[in-house]
This record gives sequence, structure tokens and C-alpha cells, in this order.
Amino acid sequence: MIERTFDQHISRQFNNELEHLRQQMMAMGGIVEQMLRQAVQALIESDTALAQVVIDTDDQVNQIEKKLDEECTLVIARRQPAASDLRLIFAIIKAISDLERIGDEAEKIARWAISLADYSRPRNDYRELELLGHTVLDMLRQGLDGFTRLSPEVAIELKNQDKKVDQEYETIFRQYYSYMMEDAGQIRRILDALLVAKSMERIGDHCKNLGEYVYYLVQGHDVRYETARQMQDSLDLESSEE
Amino acid sequence: MIERTFDQHISRQFNNELEHLRQQMMAMGGIVEQMLRQAVQALIESDTALAQVVIDTDDQVNQIEKKLDEECTLVIARRQPAASDLRLIFAIIKAISDLERIGDEAEKIARWAISLADYSRPRNDYRELELLGHTVLDMLRQGLDGFTRLSPEVAIELKNQDKKVDQEYETIFRQYYSYMMEDAGQIRRILDALLVAKSMERIGDHCKNLGEYVYYLVQGHDVRYETARQMQDSLDLESSEE
Repeated sequence: MIERTFDQHISRQFNNELEHLRQQMMAMGGIVEQMLRQAVQALIESDTALAQVVIDTDDQVNQIEKKLDEECTLVIARRQPAASDLRLIFAIIKAISDLERIGDEAEKIARWAISLADYSRPRNDYRELELLGHTVLDMLRQGLDGFTRLSPEVAIELKNQDKKVDQEYETIFRQYYSYMMEDAGQIRRILDALLVAKSMERIGDHCKNLGEYVYYLVQGHDVRYETARQMQDSLDLESSEE
Repeated sequence: MIERTFDQHISRQFNNELEHLRQQMMAMGGIVEQMLRQAVQALIESDTALAQVVIDTDDQVNQIEKKLDEECTLVIARRQPAASDLRLIFAIIKAISDLERIGDEAEKIARWAISLADYSRPRNDYRELELLGHTVLDMLRQGLDGFTRLSPEVAIELKNQDKKVDQEYETIFRQYYSYMMEDAGQIRRILDALLVAKSMERIGDHCKNLGEYVYYLVQGHDVRYETARQMQDSLDLESSEE
């Protein structure tokens, strides 16, 4: 197994640069995590002021993405890193892009939270969206944590969770569909709530991607489009070879 | 202005590698373009066999993405390119990711085409989706073409078109909403059609991204999150300085 840590470099300066990139990515991840938590809270509590905070933060996240992309390019150009270091930088570049998209989805959820605040609330206070929101928030934490602990298993865990999120989205879709059939006066509100669920489902996809980058970074191969089973088999095979 | 062409390299071999990467990206773009065209056609003509072709092709596109990502990494590791060449490779890496996501959306449209084929068709045969589909197909062609002609103006053009696509999606959303209100028996079908429109709107976003990568590649700076006006001003400023 290729052990990748952040302190193996001959050049301490280069090592610092890589660690700095990773830290900035983690800081961006922290901001996006907060956006998502606030967006879910704004939705559940009809807190339009909090929703506005999320919307305003998205701009900041977009600027961080640009800045980090540029820094990654500069580090490659200046350091001409070997393949294994390039892998780290590539994993960071890809993760940044998914984090930015999670921020976009959080912003959209916040906009729908504002729109939904105009309507009367359902009896269960969107409990199903709260649960789904907390599931993907937890996935995001795990994905970011994977970049700290460098554990390839996180990819398998997130792939399995993403499947559950997809199923949960399907359940919500069917439920909302039947609500619309029952009461046409609720269609507009339910459409907005459905798009919130769709955004959360997409966030699950992006978190699954984060796991795949960690796997790629640690194991050195790309597992996008492989099943959780294939990933697990390849980890098992490796540990039996050791 | 930094003139970027594909034949300026000291090393002919390196030049060939870069050109090969670009050609493969264009070939991938060609496949995705065909998927999107077929998905729209399958929807309009209730052609479930054609929809299945699109679904089957998505796997192939995913594999091409993985392969091209790997080749880009290898070229960087082997050639240790200067910043300007890195820019080309980065633009390709980013474009590949958007093309793959356009392929995903085309696959989803194909799945909804299959689902919608079970329902009676509206009188206008989803004319609004056909038009929106052709608009984003045209945007995709322009984005790919931008990588051949290396014209930064394509970024401005695509940004403006994306805004129109967003407006068109909003119009469709309101229209479908009123259909649902009128006839609850149609809700399920209209929900599927609405998600088709949403997928097309997302394809517009990805095409806008392609334009931004071309701009970045040619002009050397990142214009994501800038307005079309800001981009045009900076092009005008440059030509007045020449």
C-alpha cells in the first residue's frame, strides 16, 4: 500500500505548500458545511434572515474556489511535482470543485427556504427534509474528514450512504406526488420542497465524489464508476498481500 | 494578448501529446453531443429504443473521462510543463468533467423519455422542451467549437445564452405549474417533464463553464463568476492597448 502522508517531502518548503493547499481546502469545506447546516436550519425554522446569510456566503466560496485553483496551478508550475504529489494536488482541485457545487446547492436551498416561508407549514415541519439534510451534512463531514485521516474506506462508506440518499429522495418524491394529487392548492409549495430534496440528493453525489478522491489519493487509482463491492475487494486484496 | 496555439512547442513530441489530449476531449464532446441530440429526439418521438442507446452510451463516456484524466496527469508528470501549457491541460481537465456531467444529464433525459412514453402526449408534443433542448445543444456545439477556434468571445456569448436558458426554464416551470393546477391527473407526467427541463437548464450551466475555460485558456485569467459585461470590458481594453 502506498502510504501518503503530508510530511514525506525532501523539500520542507514544498511540503509546506502542499499542506497549506490542503488546509485551505479544509477551511473552504468548513464554510460550505456551515452554509449547508444554516440552509437546513433556515428551512426548518422559516428563518429568512439566516437564509440570506447563506446566500451572501456563496459569493465568498466562489472566490475561494478561484483563488485555490490558481494556487494549485502555481504550485504545479513552480514545483513540477512527481506523480504521487500531483495526485494530492489533483485530488484537492477536484474536491474544491465539488465543495463549490455543494455551496451552490446550499444557496439554492436557502432561496427555497425564503420562498417556503411564505406558505403555511406542513404538520410535520418538513421532518423528511430535515432528516435528509442531516444525512448529507454528515456525509460532507465524513468526506472532509477523509482528507485528514486519509482513509480509503471512506469512499466505500460514502458510496453506500449515497445509495440510501437516492432511495430516500425517491420516497420523498412519491410522497410529495401523492400530496399534490390530494390537494392542488399545495402544488406550488410542494414543488419548492421537492426541489430542496433534489438539491440534497445532489449534495449526496458530491460527497460521494469527495470519498472517491480520497481513495484515489491514498490508493493511487480512480474508482469513479466502480461499485462499493469492487472497491472493498481491492482493499481486501491489498491487505492480504501485505 | 497571450496568443495560444497548439504548434508553438519546442518539443514536437510534447506538442503532439497536447494536441492528442485536445483531440480526445473533442471526440468525447462529439459523443456527448450525440447523446444529447438523441435524448431530445427520443423524448419528442417517444422512441424508447433510442433512449436506451443514450443510457448505454453513458458508461462509455464515464470510462473516457477516467482515461483522459489519467492521461492529463501523466503528461504533467512527464513533461513538467510551463504555466501556459498547464493552463491548456487544466482547461481540458475541467472541460472533461463538465462534458461527463452533460452526458449524465442526457442519460437522465433519456430515462424520463422512457417514462414519459407511457403517458399520452400533450397536444404540442413537448415543443417547449424540444426548443430548450436545441438551444442547449447549440450551446454545447459552440463551447466545443471554442476549443478549436480559441476565441474568448465564446465565453461571453455562452454566458448570455445561459441567462436566456434560465429564463426559459422559469417560464416552463410556471407553465407546468398551471397545468398541474388545472388537471391533477397529469401531475406525474408533468413532474417528469419538469425534471427534463431542469436537466436542460443544468446543461446550459455546464456549457457556460466550457466557454469560461476557453477564455481562461486564451486570456490567462479565470472569469468564473464575472459578468458578461466584465469579460467584454476586459477584451475591449486589451484590443485598445494593442
